[in-house]
Amino acid sequence: MKNYLVHDEWKIIEEGFHPEFNRISESIFSLGNGRMGGRGNFEEKYSGSTLQGNYIAGVYYPDKTRVGWWKNGYPEYFAKVLNAANWIGIDIEIDGETLDLAKMEIESFSRVMDMQKGTLERTVVATFKSGKKVKITSLRFLSIVAPEIGAISYTLEPLNFDSTLKISPYVDFDVENEDSNYDEKFWVAQHSEISKNEGYITALTKKTEFLVCSGMKYDVFLNDAPVQPEYEEKLEKMFISSTFGVDVQKNSRITIQKYGVNISSEYFPKDELLAASKKILSKAYTKGFNSLLSEHTNAWMVKWETSDIKVDGDVAAQQGIRFNIFQLNQTYTGEDERLNIGPKGFTGEKYGGTTYWDTEAFCLPFYLATAEQKVARNLLIYRYKHLQKAIENAAKLGFKNGAALYPMVTINGEECHNEWEITFEEIHRNGEIAFAIYDYIRYSGDWDYLAQYGFEVLLGISRFWCQRVNWSEHKQKYVMLGVTGPNEYENNVNNNWHTNNLAVWTLKYTLEVIQYLKYRHPQEYKEITSKSNFVETSETQQWKDIVEKMYFPWDETRQIFLQQDDFLDKDLTPAAEINPAERPISQHWSWDRILRSPYIKQADVLQSIYLFEDRYDKEFIERHFDFYEPLTVHESSLSSCVHTILAARIGRPEKAYEMYLRTARLDLDDYNNDTCDGLHITSMGGAWMAFVIGFGGMRVSENMLSLNPFIPESWKSYSFKIKFRGVLLEIIVSHGVVEIINHSEADLMVDLLENIVTLNRNSSTIFENKENQLP
Amino acid sequence: MKNYLVHDEWKIIEEGFHPEFNRISESIFSLGNGRMGGRGNFEEKYSGSTLQGNYIAGVYYPDKTRVGWWKNGYPEYFAKVLNAANWIGIDIEIDGETLDLAKMEIESFSRVMDMQKGTLERTVVATFKSGKKVKITSLRFLSIVAPEIGAISYTLEPLNFDSTLKISPYVDFDVENEDSNYDEKFWVAQHSEISKNEGYITALTKKTEFLVCSGMKYDVFLNDAPVQPEYEEKLEKMFISSTFGVDVQKNSRITIQKYGVNISSEYFPKDELLAASKKILSKAYTKGFNSLLSEHTNAWMVKWETSDIKVDGDVAAQQGIRFNIFQLNQTYTGEDERLNIGPKGFTGEKYGGTTYWDTEAFCLPFYLATAEQKVARNLLIYRYKHLQKAIENAAKLGFKNGAALYPMVTINGEECHNEWEITFEEIHRNGEIAFAIYDYIRYSGDWDYLAQYGFEVLLGISRFWCQRVNWSEHKQKYVMLGVTGPNEYENNVNNNWHTNNLAVWTLKYTLEVIQYLKYRHPQEYKEITSKSNFVETSETQQWKDIVEKMYFPWDETRQIFLQQDDFLDKDLTPAAEINPAERPISQHWSWDRILRSPYIKQADVLQSIYLFEDRYDKEFIERHFDFYEPLTVHESSLSSCVHTILAARIGRPEKAYEMYLRTARLDLDDYNNDTCDGLHITSMGGAWMAFVIGFGGMRVSENMLSLNPFIPESWKSYSFKIKFRGVLLEIIVSHGVVEIINHSEADLMVDLLENIVTLNRNSSTIFENKENQLP
Repeated sequence: MKNYLVHDEWKIIEEGFHPEFNRISESIFSLGNGRMGGRGNFEEKYSGSTLQGNYIAGVYYPDKTRVGWWKNGYPEYFAKVLNAANWIGIDIEIDGETLDLAKMEIESFSRVMDMQKGTLERTVVATFKSGKKVKITSLRFLSIVAPEIGAISYTLEPLNFDSTLKISPYVDFDVENEDSNYDEKFWVAQHSEISKNEGYITALTKKTEFLVCSGMKYDVFLNDAPVQPEYEEKLEKMFISSTFGVDVQKNSRITIQKYGVNISSEYFPKDELLAASKKILSKAYTKGFNSLLSEHTNAWMVKWETSDIKVDGDVAAQQGIRFNIFQLNQTYTGEDERLNIGPKGFTGEKYGGTTYWDTEAFCLPFYLATAEQKVARNLLIYRYKHLQKAIENAAKLGFKNGAALYPMVTINGEECHNEWEITFEEIHRNGEIAFAIYDYIRYSGDWDYLAQYGFEVLLGISRFWCQRVNWSEHKQKYVMLGVTGPNEYENNVNNNWHTNNLAVWTLKYTLEVIQYLKYRHPQEYKEITSKSNFVETSETQQWKDIVEKMYFPWDETRQIFLQQDDFLDKDLTPAAEINPAERPISQHWSWDRILRSPYIKQADVLQSIYLFEDRYDKEFIERHFDFYEPLTVHESSLSSCVHTILAARIGRPEKAYEMYLRTARLDLDDYNNDTCDGLHITSMGGAWMAFVIGFGGMRVSENMLSLNPFIPESWKSYSFKIKFRGVLLEIIVSHGVVEIINHSEADLMVDLLENIVTLNRNSSTIFENKENQLP
Repeated sequence: MKNYLVHDEWKIIEEGFHPEFNRISESIFSLGNGRMGGRGNFEEKYSGSTLQGNYIAGVYYPDKTRVGWWKNGYPEYFAKVLNAANWIGIDIEIDGETLDLAKMEIESFSRVMDMQKGTLERTVVATFKSGKKVKITSLRFLSIVAPEIGAISYTLEPLNFDSTLKISPYVDFDVENEDSNYDEKFWVAQHSEISKNEGYITALTKKTEFLVCSGMKYDVFLNDAPVQPEYEEKLEKMFISSTFGVDVQKNSRITIQKYGVNISSEYFPKDELLAASKKILSKAYTKGFNSLLSEHTNAWMVKWETSDIKVDGDVAAQQGIRFNIFQLNQTYTGEDERLNIGPKGFTGEKYGGTTYWDTEAFCLPFYLATAEQKVARNLLIYRYKHLQKAIENAAKLGFKNGAALYPMVTINGEECHNEWEITFEEIHRNGEIAFAIYDYIRYSGDWDYLAQYGFEVLLGISRFWCQRVNWSEHKQKYVMLGVTGPNEYENNVNNNWHTNNLAVWTLKYTLEVIQYLKYRHPQEYKEITSKSNFVETSETQQWKDIVEKMYFPWDETRQIFLQQDDFLDKDLTPAAEINPAERPISQHWSWDRILRSPYIKQADVLQSIYLFEDRYDKEFIERHFDFYEPLTVHESSLSSCVHTILAARIGRPEKAYEMYLRTARLDLDDYNNDTCDGLHITSMGGAWMAFVIGFGGMRVSENMLSLNPFIPESWKSYSFKIKFRGVLLEIIVSHGVVEIINHSEADLMVDLLENIVTLNRNSSTIFENKENQLP
């Protein structure tokens, strides 16, 4: 846990340089716009510890996998989004000395991410070995209006000397992935050109043959007046630069405005990519830095309009939740249904930028409630487009007849992960993907989605569950053997309650959906059943039988469902009794000791209770919470949010707040000592859920939004915004009072604090919330 | 399954060259002498498919391991016995054409391993592209008398031309392992020299720094008369040769007698190794080829004296069992307690020449019954010497107080395997190692072994079991969670019966041993307890509690012990109903499908019943055999022997014979399509067990040998030899009659066909065995 960043409501501030935390800072100060992103690297050379990272969404390489012992069904490769061209680079040389903060004395330093505006600024005063002192001011952003474009304004000011500066803006495509399994490089040079202040490189990914063009163009200003210098160009296959010299006097300012373009062949035919890049860069260049910046910051204003959360009385909490919202919006914009959300977004190499069930379980709610409907919808269509691959994936494992198993880790629909206990067994993911369809429709009311896309996915997943269970003669029940639940500290268990629960739920829901489609979309239903060779009578008969006769492990004494068969055979010593020096156990205990222990990595039974909360009463949830939470070590960043939500649900505001604190500033405070690898983007969705669903008590059921907020003791007030079926609400919670502003042109009926009330259009309503008490 | 080898009682014969099976033949025609070994490669160049392999016992390299996802406790490396110098090489050139059978027309070819004599012969007539026809005759052996020495007599005969032959005997140390994980080479050149007909290379293994010296010396004969040719030496760091030319007329014979020496620094100080090698080679050279050969074949005669098995009426069976005995004796001689038996012996790279529990479970009985006592004893001392490493290994996994977990795979006592489900969980191996101590003492009567070595090992293992179980409040029993049994088609199960059984047995046996030591060896007992910090009262109290309250999964309905908890939840369709096109399932099914299935790779519950057979009556064994065998797919070469033995035990001779056939010619017929990787050496011990314990009905209990033989229908008679406490018996079994010859100077009382009889010294006794019926 670290605490070197300044607390501020809208900004992330590193005041004074912390080279020892530079990789952490680079992760935290990452910029992204949904189509590309990059770590908070310096523009100029830096010879200290750094992880240079620029990533283009959807451009991946199938890196040859490593395994201990091959198992049938393993994927051959692990697809990873590649480190792409460094387009931000500007090398500076002054009288033979290279500007490199690792080798200079730093007088002052500040790195500031303005989350309201989506910009990264840096101001440095530093002295060369020669005694020459310079001031650097840089401002960088990745446009969320023109998503191929990034821009930098970089100013140098000699503070105590006159000299000729040698400045080299460049694009470097000769990059590698630090996590390459066999030290391979993944890019093949195609074309490079440089002419004066403008240049381009195109490179092809090996095997996958994505073509990417990265280019730059820049202007130079001396004391804000344009300069036309002489350029000295350097052209290599994977590197272009054009260097110019400029004479400067003490206290004059030399500014480089550098525009970068990055486009992949996912958006233009390969033979048009270079031309398109030139055109797009030229347009941005013509528009100019300030116009680009102002349209960008305006667009961020609009995003914040519908997604901001305010906390009054706790700046650290304010900064934390805004950071989460900001990074989620930097990572995924929902413009392109081929893209998804990697656990680290565009902020590092770990997890390869691939998609996990994190998206459905922990990110979807945020986008549902804060963005346009199409954003969440595109997350679902991503999976629809992978249905055929999911069917092939299941077939590799021996399933038939269109059964679909979505991969644990994927970028193109194919499985990438190579541990059998995860790849083959952590199949609850399939249920989470089915549940996301229900969740989306419940929230949006977009029932047509079922006929267009949803049912086909549900059918594939239902078929999978139907084949994945087997009849136990012994139990006279259907059982599901050999699975791994969300709690990955158990492997290959039988009858994981959460998985069995999701399986039965999927079958039931698909049966309901069939009824709905036959009534409302008979033609589409017919087409899909024919296309899918769906034999309704016999297949649904099996499903019904499973729904009726599924086994769920249950402890009669405690009246609780068990995480899995034989869970009670474990030594159930609470996690609080583990020697603190041995926490986290994942770093201190052998794997077999962890597996044998009762300790739970992240919500498992409670994950199911969270999903299906409306089935259970408070006492039921309490019993399960009180049994499982003390055994939970929360060693996944995805654990706290579910516990916050359930603790709030059963009226334990202090526990809810304690759980929330683990997730709210996870990266800003480097809570898990791993922010250097990149940010925990998907768990940021969990932090939002903990806030809005946990504190705000937001639920949707039967077409009605309900709210049941409470406020942590130490806060003065907080507010959050949500969109629900076209209505934008702002919920302001303070001690004893809840105010809801309906910012829209339509009235909305909601269930507030267990009363049904109408929120009139364009008006504010104030409610008493006397006890600030949860049920 | 292949069938290209000629059936013969004493010889393995390849008649006509089968280049498509050459790697298989190279495995089968492997030679070894316990200290070194090599595949049946050709002396001359061969450009076809070949796996060049020469191995020096105990000389290993810790190859960097590969894993999918690192788990705490994994070993950093996989130790592998290295491919060492090719010392057999003799290159031949005739008028610019290189002798290379892959490029010649072969008129006749025979490759013959004479198992009685321990020699490999080859006779070839082949024609060059130029039309020149030659005859090659080679005879090779690795001396079991001078275990550093190998010798070759290689004769060339021009059949239709006169010419000058260019002949280059060489030693090539520039070798690599085909299975190197990262394509590394493992040897570093140290010294090389060549002078006329004699040369040496020494090389060091990276990291482990074993020094090995390989050398050669040769003589040349023309029509059996010595020749002194001119030598042209070639000296490289890792290669030496000396080439000579010799004029030959049609039908004359040119013979090279080449002697090789291979010694490692395990036997001489590094600075004396070269000199020692020269001295040893010189001694062999002076002795001459024929003397070396005759002392070698005589020594083999002596080995066969005590270990031969004869089958009358089935040449294939005769050849099969002799091949197994021959290869076991080639692999391990018991001279050096630092050595052990790799699953492939010296016949290939797979499994890295490392030690598995195969040794204790499937090889020990063979050496106990056919070799001097010290041979089996040294196998045990090997583990004793690794005790400290086993304690360290357990400590890495979180165990304390001298608990010992022997590795799954090892060469120096450290764990090498890197799959958690095996490394951490397949812990029954620990029990098998404990059982081997009991087995050895039961057979040999060497109770002193307990005080010298055995008890310390038992103590470490008992401490492990004691910590590995936990108390289940729910069951009010001790349970053992998260294990993998011998059936590796199940992973991470709870309460594997075999493992629980072995744990309780170890504790009980150790308690007995303590009683014995306190009575018979009080001083040694005191020393060991003090050295081991053994607190007898409290530790044994815990053990007794576990022995009393251990849980064993049991099916009341079927009256059988269950392989593990919840086994009955599986779909128990018999293996016979699996689509034959999907067998072996390990090659056709995904791993998760295998895990969920009820199919058993090799004996698991039945392995325990085999070990503890004396506890169970025939009906008990039948019930378990009839439940488990139909679910067993026998996809381990170690499966059949236990099934043969138990089938014989319950009076099912046909089933016993069927099972035996799967193992008896496993490699000769390439039953599993993998003999190209090397021979299944450890399963050869199983084949011997199937024969002697299965057909012969040999048991030892309460200090008495018992025999209860039956004979398969199709055989006329068979006989086997066993040594028991100084007495050599020959048991000859035919239909209706059992004859036992006591070849020793002492009488022996045995339990024969359930009658106690005395076998008088140096005499034969004949017994009726009317029904050839098993109990």
